[in-house]
Amino acid sequence: MFKVTFMFENGEDVTTFAQEGEILLEVARKTNVAIDAPCSGNASCGKCKVKLVTGEMNSPKTRHISNEEYAEGWRLACVSKLTGDVEVQVPDIASAYRSRMKVADLSSKEEIAIFEQAKSDVEAAGIVLKNSLDIIHVTMDEPSLDDTMPDNERLMRAIKRETGVERVRLPYSALRKISVVFRENHFDVKCIVRRTEDDIFVYDVYGRDEKVVIGGLAVDIGTTTVSALLINMQTGEILGKASAGNGQIRYGADVINRIIESMKPGGSVKLQRAVVEETINPMIEQMCRSCGFRPLHIYRMCIASNTTMNHLLTGMNGDPIRMEPYIPTFYKTNSLFASDIGIRVNPDAHIILAPNIGSYVGGDITAGTLVSMLWNRPEFSLFIDLGTNGELVFGNSDFMMSCACSAGPAFEGGDISCGMRATDGAIEACTIDAETMEPSFSVIGDQGEKPIGLCGSGIIDVISELFRTGIINPKGKFIREGKRVRHDEYGMGSYVLAFEEESGSVKEVEINEVDIDNFIRAKGAIFSAIRTMLLSLDFDISMIDDVYVAGGIGSGINMQNAVRIGMFPDIPLEKFHYIGNSSLSGAYTMLLSKEAEQKCYEIASNMTYLELSAVPSYMDEFVACCFIPHTDTSLFPSVTEE
Amino acid sequence: MFKVTFMFENGEDVTTFAQEGEILLEVARKTNVAIDAPCSGNASCGKCKVKLVTGEMNSPKTRHISNEEYAEGWRLACVSKLTGDVEVQVPDIASAYRSRMKVADLSSKEEIAIFEQAKSDVEAAGIVLKNSLDIIHVTMDEPSLDDTMPDNERLMRAIKRETGVERVRLPYSALRKISVVFRENHFDVKCIVRRTEDDIFVYDVYGRDEKVVIGGLAVDIGTTTVSALLINMQTGEILGKASAGNGQIRYGADVINRIIESMKPGGSVKLQRAVVEETINPMIEQMCRSCGFRPLHIYRMCIASNTTMNHLLTGMNGDPIRMEPYIPTFYKTNSLFASDIGIRVNPDAHIILAPNIGSYVGGDITAGTLVSMLWNRPEFSLFIDLGTNGELVFGNSDFMMSCACSAGPAFEGGDISCGMRATDGAIEACTIDAETMEPSFSVIGDQGEKPIGLCGSGIIDVISELFRTGIINPKGKFIREGKRVRHDEYGMGSYVLAFEEESGSVKEVEINEVDIDNFIRAKGAIFSAIRTMLLSLDFDISMIDDVYVAGGIGSGINMQNAVRIGMFPDIPLEKFHYIGNSSLSGAYTMLLSKEAEQKCYEIASNMTYLELSAVPSYMDEFVACCFIPHTDTSLFPSVTEE
Repeated sequence: MFKVTFMFENGEDVTTFAQEGEILLEVARKTNVAIDAPCSGNASCGKCKVKLVTGEMNSPKTRHISNEEYAEGWRLACVSKLTGDVEVQVPDIASAYRSRMKVADLSSKEEIAIFEQAKSDVEAAGIVLKNSLDIIHVTMDEPSLDDTMPDNERLMRAIKRETGVERVRLPYSALRKISVVFRENHFDVKCIVRRTEDDIFVYDVYGRDEKVVIGGLAVDIGTTTVSALLINMQTGEILGKASAGNGQIRYGADVINRIIESMKPGGSVKLQRAVVEETINPMIEQMCRSCGFRPLHIYRMCIASNTTMNHLLTGMNGDPIRMEPYIPTFYKTNSLFASDIGIRVNPDAHIILAPNIGSYVGGDITAGTLVSMLWNRPEFSLFIDLGTNGELVFGNSDFMMSCACSAGPAFEGGDISCGMRATDGAIEACTIDAETMEPSFSVIGDQGEKPIGLCGSGIIDVISELFRTGIINPKGKFIREGKRVRHDEYGMGSYVLAFEEESGSVKEVEINEVDIDNFIRAKGAIFSAIRTMLLSLDFDISMIDDVYVAGGIGSGINMQNAVRIGMFPDIPLEKFHYIGNSSLSGAYTMLLSKEAEQKCYEIASNMTYLELSAVPSYMDEFVACCFIPHTDTSLFPSVTEE
Repeated sequence: MFKVTFMFENGEDVTTFAQEGEILLEVARKTNVAIDAPCSGNASCGKCKVKLVTGEMNSPKTRHISNEEYAEGWRLACVSKLTGDVEVQVPDIASAYRSRMKVADLSSKEEIAIFEQAKSDVEAAGIVLKNSLDIIHVTMDEPSLDDTMPDNERLMRAIKRETGVERVRLPYSALRKISVVFRENHFDVKCIVRRTEDDIFVYDVYGRDEKVVIGGLAVDIGTTTVSALLINMQTGEILGKASAGNGQIRYGADVINRIIESMKPGGSVKLQRAVVEETINPMIEQMCRSCGFRPLHIYRMCIASNTTMNHLLTGMNGDPIRMEPYIPTFYKTNSLFASDIGIRVNPDAHIILAPNIGSYVGGDITAGTLVSMLWNRPEFSLFIDLGTNGELVFGNSDFMMSCACSAGPAFEGGDISCGMRATDGAIEACTIDAETMEPSFSVIGDQGEKPIGLCGSGIIDVISELFRTGIINPKGKFIREGKRVRHDEYGMGSYVLAFEEESGSVKEVEINEVDIDNFIRAKGAIFSAIRTMLLSLDFDISMIDDVYVAGGIGSGINMQNAVRIGMFPDIPLEKFHYIGNSSLSGAYTMLLSKEAEQKCYEIASNMTYLELSAVPSYMDEFVACCFIPHTDTSLFPSVTEE
């Protein structure tokens, strides 16, 4: 056995033991050391760079490690085999995605305002946001020797009498409680129920005078980040908030790598545990503890997530999602309870999943479409959810069409050498002086944080500014020289945003031509998808009335820069609206409201799906988009004018 | 800490450690050493006698220990406090009830014949014994890029098409399987379903050509013994059999003591575990192993048990059962699944409970009444279930009345100094020579077994024979002298069935006046209940057409002797029928047949209940019955004639 020590920039160490020949990244995963590996260990993303401090490993040189870096001890954890004891330094950028992900959604004023706007939009459409669960007061006769009806029948008859509903269901955990609660409260109680026209489901029973808050949970499970809200189901009030990195991330950054991982022996259970036990349950605990709430009093959950995420969450076979003809186990299912998948709330809590409409357009999009209000307006709107996958919905109150494209992890900082998620230390906005080529940027975090990398909105700004100032050409190649522009031994250009002394990590923050190329492909995927979908409907870009942009890219996104690099269509800037985490706000509305839930099912069944790979022109369109802003500059008149 | 060693007659030892002042019986329970304590440790039954071999304990003398026995080292485990290291001998009689309970129900030819008779009686009434679960073959179109319906909808639509039933339910564990099964079998599958008029519940999915046996489980949970049958649900064939002592027995022999135990902190969970994890799950494992069956392929269970047993099984609050007005949580419940209570079969398996009709007439009686066929005959029948509680049903196809009396544990050998359950070493039948007063008896077990105690049928025989031969008088007092008749220092008489050298244990097998008195009360409870119920209906004993006797007392019961001691009414012997474990055969029929299940619910709702304690004459009747055969000998003309 060899001794392996992971050293972190904050001075903490983690030591473990491993066998000869074990891969360092695997050792880190087993030890719960977070090293970002979006490509799931294929040596393709280069994000798992660590620095050997002592010892040696059998570690090939890859395109992600320059000769100089290799000499300094930099290695990719995913291809390094142990040959003896080692100490390795894990740079913050490699572990930041998890350890620093502490800020919940809806923490800033801007986000809360966006959320409140979504709520009032939905309510304006006549959807009441507080009718999902009810409390029914039930007064029963106390039993006697002449009236020996058992407790469960006594309750069910009383509820029938009270409500006129014939079918009353009393599941096991409520059944267990009634005897004691009835006797402690002289058969004068209140029940927490879900009521439909012909059916009442009794979740719990309390004494008439007990103070009861019905808890509910809205969850957005993203491929990268999971966000949750703990809700008072009677008032809609948010009692707690939490966000965390999706624990599955160590098994791959994108859905395809996760599915592949889930197909290995024991993989399905491993992936399910990573999101349920390591991610969601701790978030529930944390939210409940922060407001003194009991998880058992959470009686309903709504989860919005993409099709792969809801299949891995529920332990379903994911393989058919990634293989033609791309058929998931379910679009919609009503048979899921918290106890089925080990979520630690009331075991009888129903789990509502926002419905999928295909293998690549999931519940996050139907829930997001719900709060975009696209379905309720005569104007033609485009809804764009920017995540690891990019999904689009176009339409209005008469029709809706959706499609999905694989943008890759670039919007979340993946596939970019200094890319990172939008957490502390990330450059989120940037301008570059056209004369001096010096950057000015803002960094996420407390005042005075030094930059350690670039998040999605920061990358958009940097590339847009490099293009605007003529530092790069439309192909993304560096064409000016200066202190911050460099070319390596192979001639690859890069721009340094922060030299080592300016940086918050042990590495410089820079962006190179490979990064820019990766990002151009990501934005090209989005724009070509927009073009292809509109063309298939015989629509022109100018006919878009509004664009709703959602996703974790952050409210910092600069729409003008996104247009300038050819990511979004060149229409007036006032038509763009950032609507935050629409998947989470959609889940919130479905959790609280029967009509919202119903509406989401309607949206799902009314939405048509366009499989882009089946449109012959899509690839040509994509290639044409892989320029800044586009090979056809007439599509971006405002950029050309500048 | 003191060292405590329990020594068994088979030479095995169990050693543990305990604190000063701990009660020996509690130490035994914690160590899983089985010492019979039917009174749950109140020093009232005297069954937990152990013999000190080395060391001392703080252990008062009780009425159950003679001076001589005390001098020999005999102590009651339930009142003995540790004061130092001890070694104690546990006589077989104290531990036999559990370690020797290895023989399943339906092991003898007689029992199998009785069971087959019950089946054909039920089938003769038009109840088909194989329609509870079905297999439906479903052939679906394979999905394509033009037909992207997800797996669950594809299945549900195909089932609707196949059956015409609109509502198809696919629970979580079936949902998880479909994706793989569909693809491995080209969407040509069969489903195990429960089908009603307007609803289909899908338990599982298999490939079309897979060999599938649908498993079911019929269980009788008695206060003392649990019996189970593993069934092929399509043919009714019995695949496996098992019986075991109810693991709850160490918490008390009768339902009242168990309820009291369950009300202590953690008690409810402890009692539930004792029957589920220590009793039923090992029986399931054993049956499945013996025939190579997978517990996951058991999709339905029917459990027949008294009201207390089904409440403790399901972890319900038992207290109201024992307190006026005696209201249980449920008579009938449809919301129970195997996973709710931790029974290790398919987690979605429904658990059907034979319905209770009151706190003291439970599902064992409704299930038993079902197979007694009482409900289907114009003749007036009396159904008697002899257990720790005695329950009676009287009636015919027009009406049914039931009542319950507390017989105490005497029929199962409790409250009798050498009493034991009907297992190996028990005297099950006996005659006594009127001249020599020498006994001849048969002992349960392999040939040549020496007696260690008396089971219920043996006690009936011994008392009847002692009475017939004039050794005891109608009050149960010894009135003849002889080698086997003794009187102790207080003048209490006893009869020795086996002296130490004739016995299979370290103790003599004898019966004394206290034992006889206890048994007279038990039989008096039964007969006075019969009389009281018939009188309340203005019926006379002579109007009984048939008597069906059920219970674990065994097919060895001698009806003539039972009449002679005044336990059963004095009617022609050919009217008596022993119908074995009717609770188990009732559960078997309900498991297999929708009509049988429905019939049992009807029986429960049509049966009236007579609360004996509310009948003013019952106590007088009981006192009058506490003679052999009765104070009113005219009720037993055939006995008087002898």
